[in-house]
Amino acid sequence: MKKEVSYSPDGIKYFLPLEGDYAQEFTRVCDLVARANANGQEIVVVMGVGFVGAVMAAIVADAVNEDGMPSKFVIGMQRPSVRSYWKIPTLNKGISPVKAEDPEVDRLIRRCVLDKKTLTATFTYDVLKLADVVIIDVQLDYIKNEIGNVRNGNVEMSALEDSFDIIAHHIKPDALVLIETTVAPGTTEQIAFPLMKKIFRARGIESDPLLAHSYERVMPGRDYVASVRDFWRVCSGVNQASTGRVVKFLNEVLNTKEFPLTVLDRPIESETAKIVENSYRATTLAFMDEWSKFAERNGIDIVKVINAVRVRPTHSNLIFPGPGIGGYCLPKDGGLGVWAYRHVLGFEDDLFRITPLAIDINDTRALHAAQFVRDAMRNMNLPIAGAEILILGASYREDVGDTRFSGSELMARRLADMGADIRVHDPYVDQWWELVTQDNYPSHSLKDFFRNQKKLKDLKVLKDLTEALKGIDTLVFAVRHKAYLDLEPEDVVRAAGGPIAVIDCFGVLDDRKIKGYLQLGCEVKGLGRGHIQRIKNEIRNTNRVL
Amino acid sequence: MKKEVSYSPDGIKYFLPLEGDYAQEFTRVCDLVARANANGQEIVVVMGVGFVGAVMAAIVADAVNEDGMPSKFVIGMQRPSVRSYWKIPTLNKGISPVKAEDPEVDRLIRRCVLDKKTLTATFTYDVLKLADVVIIDVQLDYIKNEIGNVRNGNVEMSALEDSFDIIAHHIKPDALVLIETTVAPGTTEQIAFPLMKKIFRARGIESDPLLAHSYERVMPGRDYVASVRDFWRVCSGVNQASTGRVVKFLNEVLNTKEFPLTVLDRPIESETAKIVENSYRATTLAFMDEWSKFAERNGIDIVKVINAVRVRPTHSNLIFPGPGIGGYCLPKDGGLGVWAYRHVLGFEDDLFRITPLAIDINDTRALHAAQFVRDAMRNMNLPIAGAEILILGASYREDVGDTRFSGSELMARRLADMGADIRVHDPYVDQWWELVTQDNYPSHSLKDFFRNQKKLKDLKVLKDLTEALKGIDTLVFAVRHKAYLDLEPEDVVRAAGGPIAVIDCFGVLDDRKIKGYLQLGCEVKGLGRGHIQRIKNEIRNTNRVL
Repeated sequence: MKKEVSYSPDGIKYFLPLEGDYAQEFTRVCDLVARANANGQEIVVVMGVGFVGAVMAAIVADAVNEDGMPSKFVIGMQRPSVRSYWKIPTLNKGISPVKAEDPEVDRLIRRCVLDKKTLTATFTYDVLKLADVVIIDVQLDYIKNEIGNVRNGNVEMSALEDSFDIIAHHIKPDALVLIETTVAPGTTEQIAFPLMKKIFRARGIESDPLLAHSYERVMPGRDYVASVRDFWRVCSGVNQASTGRVVKFLNEVLNTKEFPLTVLDRPIESETAKIVENSYRATTLAFMDEWSKFAERNGIDIVKVINAVRVRPTHSNLIFPGPGIGGYCLPKDGGLGVWAYRHVLGFEDDLFRITPLAIDINDTRALHAAQFVRDAMRNMNLPIAGAEILILGASYREDVGDTRFSGSELMARRLADMGADIRVHDPYVDQWWELVTQDNYPSHSLKDFFRNQKKLKDLKVLKDLTEALKGIDTLVFAVRHKAYLDLEPEDVVRAAGGPIAVIDCFGVLDDRKIKGYLQLGCEVKGLGRGHIQRIKNEIRNTNRVL
Repeated sequence: MKKEVSYSPDGIKYFLPLEGDYAQEFTRVCDLVARANANGQEIVVVMGVGFVGAVMAAIVADAVNEDGMPSKFVIGMQRPSVRSYWKIPTLNKGISPVKAEDPEVDRLIRRCVLDKKTLTATFTYDVLKLADVVIIDVQLDYIKNEIGNVRNGNVEMSALEDSFDIIAHHIKPDALVLIETTVAPGTTEQIAFPLMKKIFRARGIESDPLLAHSYERVMPGRDYVASVRDFWRVCSGVNQASTGRVVKFLNEVLNTKEFPLTVLDRPIESETAKIVENSYRATTLAFMDEWSKFAERNGIDIVKVINAVRVRPTHSNLIFPGPGIGGYCLPKDGGLGVWAYRHVLGFEDDLFRITPLAIDINDTRALHAAQFVRDAMRNMNLPIAGAEILILGASYREDVGDTRFSGSELMARRLADMGADIRVHDPYVDQWWELVTQDNYPSHSLKDFFRNQKKLKDLKVLKDLTEALKGIDTLVFAVRHKAYLDLEPEDVVRAAGGPIAVIDCFGVLDDRKIKGYLQLGCEVKGLGRGHIQRIKNEIRNTNRVL
């Protein structure tokens, strides 16, 4: 049998394990667990060592008891797929499988794997037999079949349901299973619990599975670890025993002294809280989409308006949506709720009027941004086809390298659709995975909605800003990365070699810089920046021959 | 000619002035102004001494210069209508025309009228001739023609346009006109400015009117005065001179040291900021309507979920909508924006998808609350017709007496519609004006949408809670007034004389009290409180004969 290969992002080749490798691997872990047991450590299996799981595993592995001694031994479990197997050997070298701007991620993983020896990674499900606690951090995707229609989508449940099945077949009856994945409300009680209970009964276990839900509030960026460990948590169990266990466990591994736990009565409350949380965020952002457009059409600078409103503490959550709303959670979590209402909870009416609308608005905002690029170029008589357009920022958020569902992606796709030659610069992104691996986009394959997408596959993320600017026709400020905030118009235009079209999608330019670009002969447009027309008129009036 | 009469809320009768009274009144004010001028005081006319104008007038009148001497003399101006004339003699006695929970309102007005003598009220427009500054605080209503369809409504502009006209005809060319009313975006620059400029030209004045917009953020309640004076302000002028003047003026009268001014570039930005601000609030509330219903149908306590989510500082603005969203501003301000987009700014497309939807959802939420009352009563086999239903709280917000557009009103109207006998208790409300004066409801005449509304006209607001509870069939917690938070089930059921239906519209009851009511034989339902069914089942399981 030919060995399959999994490549790590830095190009290291790993052969996937063969059937014969499993027994040996399980023996390896059993030895580690025997030593851990002898040290009085609790055994925790984390299923899925992706964005959340890898960091959560390390945080648990870093936990100490009252005497300052390591209290947990953690086994990161990952299916050995071509796409993900490399994470296991990588982790076992003490290297984080997740690239993060927070240096604490690397330090924490190195410390736990190499120094404290409280963290290992494996591919065999058999380790579930050893677990006192199983944490589920597998991904749960929401598949959209259209752009801007979240209702016409569905939840890809199979991987999660498989996990419940495998766990129930393997675990000790008194192991706590903690679902940390963001799930459709009702999943813990109406899918996981009955499924696992049936398997328990079939195994002759009379007790009910100990099952709990708790959601993290991870935020990519420089405080990645703290956003998981030093932040408020919500949890709940399917029964009193489960609740007691999850509360005890989270108190042992998280900083709940400074950030107290919120314990809810039922998992559906905790599941719903997570969906409400992200849908609230998505809604406040979508709300600003229409006012941003209102501003564009009526000479208003929405950035100044937002800053004026945010002064009120009761309105401090209001933020500017930029060129679209990305990240893994906000584009999908409301969809999980709407889907669950029908498919898990069995309702036929259309209860949700705002939650899905907000996602649809957010999902299409980047197309509006692309129109702004088109309009600015038209104002300069620049055809889109063949034009050199530089997008500054590929990620979904300032000063992180997470490109999932970023507004920049949809914008790049539309502009490529129209024939433009796209360049992209991002100091935090090495490879723009969604474009390079056109066929495994985690949610919907955006490429299918557009033409001319092949070129994007070869898109390199540029690292030298001056080089990137050379010879461009159009510059798009898409993300508020630090490196872009201080760019001066003179320097940009000099590097570009002449006047260009400048599109500000995220309130990057202040009025002085807008004026600077205009005076250098550039065309400037900005999402929500209707006041640019007034600045143009001021210049026009100044230049007028009296 | 028969003298017309205006009655104050406490029943004092005032004759409206006749034509011959105007000259004498103007002379009276001229004398006061001459003395104020001699003292170096600036003359400020406040048009409209209602909810905002009365307090704003007093705050300005209370301002002092660097030497601690009064720096402004304020004239409150009010049209002498049957409905409003009483405010003028009342103010001139040093009595506030606005009933407020904040004792500072009465003190401030008494001090300025009687002690400092820096505040007077009048009915003659001639005083505009004396003004250095004119502040417009007239009401601007949005008329809705249907329940739950804000798009099918319009702005009642005539009073405001009349004010602009009268002001422009009377004022000195260098008087600053400050629009404080919440207006449709574009009003200052596209309605007031050109209208006033034309009148200025007709008067032979070559300079442009000095026109500015600044919005207050008044909040009824115990901090009424502080919410106007000690709070952040946003302002802007139609040109540099106006901006300079409004900034100088607001710095002189408000606590801008602790709460700095936000100065925007154009009045349309300031006007829009106000609309965005209140539409944001309306949207976050409307967003929770669907999740509140989701909770009701799926065993979730939305109150606990909201508290879990609000722990995050980025989500602290999330609040529970209660039985509907009232107050003067939130039900209409988004309407001003949607209306302006078409009628002032001339767009034909449907830009707004969330802002009007949010208002429609909020405007109909109280009807859902009424359904809950019906359902709880049906579960007890209580017919609605002829039932004694006590609503606790008539105001739109806890611990204030402001009943404008309260959820309680719509709920009371629907329940009366269905034949119920409504009682209401509210410690802060003396008369429920919207019900008593069925024909001058400030926005839309809700009465027209229902039958059986006549009885409500005689509805007395009860003040003795125990008395109010006597013999009721149903109790509705509609507002979180302090007096209701500590009510114990035993006391309520004893006062009622037996088990009743209890409907909690605002998360007033905790789980212990819910259980208490249920154990006493009551039926309990609550908006967003789906977990009540679980509490019922706990009791059922406890009582079960094994």
